[in-house]
Amino acid sequence: MRPMTDDEARAFLTVGTRTGKLAVVRADGRPHVSPIWFVLDGGDLVFTTWKDSVKGRSLRRDPRVALTVDDEEPPFAFVMVEGEVTLSEDPDALLRWATTIGGRYMGADRAERYGHRNAVPGELLVRLVPSKIIGRAGIAE
Amino acid sequence: MRPMTDDEARAFLTVGTRTGKLAVVRADGRPHVSPIWFVLDGGDLVFTTWKDSVKGRSLRRDPRVALTVDDEEPPFAFVMVEGEVTLSEDPDALLRWATTIGGRYMGADRAERYGHRNAVPGELLVRLVPSKIIGRAGIAE
Repeated sequence: MRPMTDDEARAFLTVGTRTGKLAVVRADGRPHVSPIWFVLDGGDLVFTTWKDSVKGRSLRRDPRVALTVDDEEPPFAFVMVEGEVTLSEDPDALLRWATTIGGRYMGADRAERYGHRNAVPGELLVRLVPSKIIGRAGIAE
Repeated sequence: MRPMTDDEARAFLTVGTRTGKLAVVRADGRPHVSPIWFVLDGGDLVFTTWKDSVKGRSLRRDPRVALTVDDEEPPFAFVMVEGEVTLSEDPDALLRWATTIGGRYMGADRAERYGHRNAVPGELLVRLVPSKIIGRAGIAE
């Protein structure tokens, strides 16, 4: 196993359609983790979520999150991100980022359709500002 | 998007070297998520972790966990598991399961080596008993 540099860890996050597994804490103190589609904006991770989903409600109550992206093929690798989120409902920013995210996961030709489908009232734009990023490569070596 | 049956969800968990992303809650209330190697034992998920890792310490304090496995290629799919864990330090069971887990992720020829490396004092055998399993396929369809 070897540590990734910061640049390697950020590059790892952006490969193809890798999803983030976002962990939050529910009101009753139980953990919750679900896959999210995200893109990087400089050092931040940007994604959207429905306001009244478990994720949305948890983030509105407590901005502290953790996120993992991993490579599930030998020799295995992962990046873990910790930090806090800020939330926005600005419709222009929401449309812009939902379209960018759609482009990453659905392909350029479907980006706009995805953007418009997700940039609707009730959807939150979430910006995760990392306080810590750890990357490990060659886990099984 | 369409729901998976229970059987589909369990089968999804066991495909190839897919890892679980295990979420726990730290002592200070922050979430933590990290990739784990696991196998199914009937309805339970079995894995090992180091007693004094963030995971190990969190599980000893609070047995409530969440776990996600997903397919990161279009049309995307995921399974989410919620439940509680029980912990054991029984050396024979630890060796048996560490070897089985090694076989899944490292291949049959390296299973025994991995088993012996991980079945050591200080390593916990963790059994996750699901209270809820949700599967969704064709997310982007």
